[in-house]
Amino acid sequence: MALIVQKFGGTSVGTVDRIENVADRIGKFRDNGDDIVVVVSAMSGETNRLVELAHSIDEKPEAREYDVLLSTGEQVTIALLSMALNKRGISARSYTGTQVHILTDSTHNKARILSIEEKKMRSDLNGGRVIVVAGFQGVDEHGNITTLGRGGSDTTAVALAAALKADECQIYTDVDGVYTTDPRVVPDARRLEKITFEEMLEMASLGSKVLQIRAVEFAGKYNVPLRVLSSFDEPYFANNKNGNESDGSNGTLITYEEDEMEQALISGIAFNRDEAKLTILGVPDKPGVAYSILGPVGDSNVEIDMIIQNISDDGTTDFTFTVHRNDFVEAKKVLSKVAADLGAREVVGDDKIVKISLVGVGMRSHAGIASKMFKTLAEESINIIMISTSEIKISVVVDEKYLELGVRALHSAFGLEEKV
Amino acid sequence: MALIVQKFGGTSVGTVDRIENVADRIGKFRDNGDDIVVVVSAMSGETNRLVELAHSIDEKPEAREYDVLLSTGEQVTIALLSMALNKRGISARSYTGTQVHILTDSTHNKARILSIEEKKMRSDLNGGRVIVVAGFQGVDEHGNITTLGRGGSDTTAVALAAALKADECQIYTDVDGVYTTDPRVVPDARRLEKITFEEMLEMASLGSKVLQIRAVEFAGKYNVPLRVLSSFDEPYFANNKNGNESDGSNGTLITYEEDEMEQALISGIAFNRDEAKLTILGVPDKPGVAYSILGPVGDSNVEIDMIIQNISDDGTTDFTFTVHRNDFVEAKKVLSKVAADLGAREVVGDDKIVKISLVGVGMRSHAGIASKMFKTLAEESINIIMISTSEIKISVVVDEKYLELGVRALHSAFGLEEKV
Repeated sequence: MALIVQKFGGTSVGTVDRIENVADRIGKFRDNGDDIVVVVSAMSGETNRLVELAHSIDEKPEAREYDVLLSTGEQVTIALLSMALNKRGISARSYTGTQVHILTDSTHNKARILSIEEKKMRSDLNGGRVIVVAGFQGVDEHGNITTLGRGGSDTTAVALAAALKADECQIYTDVDGVYTTDPRVVPDARRLEKITFEEMLEMASLGSKVLQIRAVEFAGKYNVPLRVLSSFDEPYFANNKNGNESDGSNGTLITYEEDEMEQALISGIAFNRDEAKLTILGVPDKPGVAYSILGPVGDSNVEIDMIIQNISDDGTTDFTFTVHRNDFVEAKKVLSKVAADLGAREVVGDDKIVKISLVGVGMRSHAGIASKMFKTLAEESINIIMISTSEIKISVVVDEKYLELGVRALHSAFGLEEKV
Repeated sequence: MALIVQKFGGTSVGTVDRIENVADRIGKFRDNGDDIVVVVSAMSGETNRLVELAHSIDEKPEAREYDVLLSTGEQVTIALLSMALNKRGISARSYTGTQVHILTDSTHNKARILSIEEKKMRSDLNGGRVIVVAGFQGVDEHGNITTLGRGGSDTTAVALAAALKADECQIYTDVDGVYTTDPRVVPDARRLEKITFEEMLEMASLGSKVLQIRAVEFAGKYNVPLRVLSSFDEPYFANNKNGNESDGSNGTLITYEEDEMEQALISGIAFNRDEAKLTILGVPDKPGVAYSILGPVGDSNVEIDMIIQNISDDGTTDFTFTVHRNDFVEAKKVLSKVAADLGAREVVGDDKIVKISLVGVGMRSHAGIASKMFKTLAEESINIIMISTSEIKISVVVDEKYLELGVRALHSAFGLEEKV
């Protein structure tokens, strides 16, 4: 007897058979007495097909028309899923972003949701209907179709859950939750029962790409309990009508910090293989030097991640930052010009590095995590190239050849394979 | 300097290359100073793809969701064509049926247009924009997506032309106009420069399937000049800016009767190969007998075309009607039951018949057309099975083996190959 928003991604609705499976799953939740709002993506492959059509006409298609085009992908899915539900005798009704009035700003291709009209949905829910909403899309104040950008369907689901004050927002993917680290690197990585929004944000931005970061931010802001589940497992009922044990895995619940969670020092280990490092050496140190270095890099649309500055005794400074590996060549080119302008000594770089991060809200109240991390890496003779810390995260940059060794050593040292 | 609504069907926008061609064509009209509203269908094949998806889920998919699904086909085309126009520097904007507010009733799959909001389009036109509208679709008063049924894009185009009081509505197809009869039967069939709405309605319903009959009715009702043109010919400019001769064929203009048109006795010869005939013999004649025969046939969703009743001397009547050949077996089954109920003597049928019709507004003021028709057929020893007449049409039913012979003889007898 809960109100649940469920989101199914492109793989989960990639074929007619899978759409039928989703309809079966929703049927079980209806049998359990739950009210269901479903958000779906385009069938996998469909968005790529549409993108190719657009690009065969124009390399840079007009943003407004691109949204008109792409939004058809989700519209196909909502119609098919609603047909499949109605065929089963489950009363269902589909809505496009325009129809359910997901009002966004007018930034085509990456619009932001401003508000959602709740009335129509509430009336459908009261009438016992399942609501099937097209993810990823909205409408601006002038009636133009907008899209939310990559992973926007997650955001749609969270926004609907917030608007309807749903009991839970369930994101169905091809994994059954958030893990302490990537199981491909650490075979005994453990699925987390719970994780905080903040930890999830650090995990997501650091490379554990289960959930779209904007959706997590949104969920945190509106305090929407968010659950990541596998669409291939049996259904998990948060409020089982018969009081039975739930059949399926309950995935990972992303929520606000609670007392019981404080026991875990570290929730997980994230890593990022796509890092590259650039250092400008011997920059004459004066106010504004950071901006005069990073400004031009940012202007060339290169995103900067970690930043470290050391001041030497001789009145010059060394400045190091990391970028995505794809941007390494471009960034180095820009930086060389900057170095010449500033009278710096030299630009050096390394695109064979990786970043490993410990994430955990427990760090806030527990000292010694950083030193334990450095000790563990030292025992494996892993040289640390850079260090960066935040309240709930410690990141180190190491040579890429140490990635697996480092992650495994840390996973074991912090006992992450054990159920807390 | 005219306001023209142009409609391009699925074949004309079937590939990206053809969409580019349509954009080029529109560019030439813009160069000529014309304001253009474009209506497009789904890319050929796309609607079938969507229909198959729906039917793989449900043989009888829910009507509302079917419309949500099918309407994506045209939405893809409007986006792609608008991209192609904008790429050429031709300012263009796409609109779905919902966005331009083509208000329809709520009869999903075959909705009727009630009104169109003109304001948004007028403002775009004043701003020098080409408007690209999705054909075939609308929105009901509750915001549900509707579709207009088969050939609905023609109707959309005419409705837009009526709402905007356009100078002309041009329907681009794969033929370059309306012919005196099917050129595959009569090689020297001639393209008509003009034809009246009424004649076109008789031609269309009789099997010359160039234009959707609903669109012609609509155009006639709102007096929208309608022109059928080939999308493969060079553009034809009704109001050539430079006063030059037009490059392309001007197709066929469908309009109200004018003086000059009275010269033509007969505009064309339509025919229909899909006819079948049923006769119930020896029905006791009493009031209401026609209804008691045709009521049950209509109830079984069989459409009835021609009807003839003869009264015999013996107080019984013979009743003959034609149906589509596909409905022959079903209609015969229903009729046999009716015959038993009514105490009729016998039911006989023939599904090897065709209908040939002379169409022309000139019949109104000229006698002797019918007798000339019958004489011509007699000279070829073609036996007439049934005759039916209206103000501007004479139809005869003959054995199907006489179709080509009959049409050619009549085409020649009425001098249709000669330019009037």
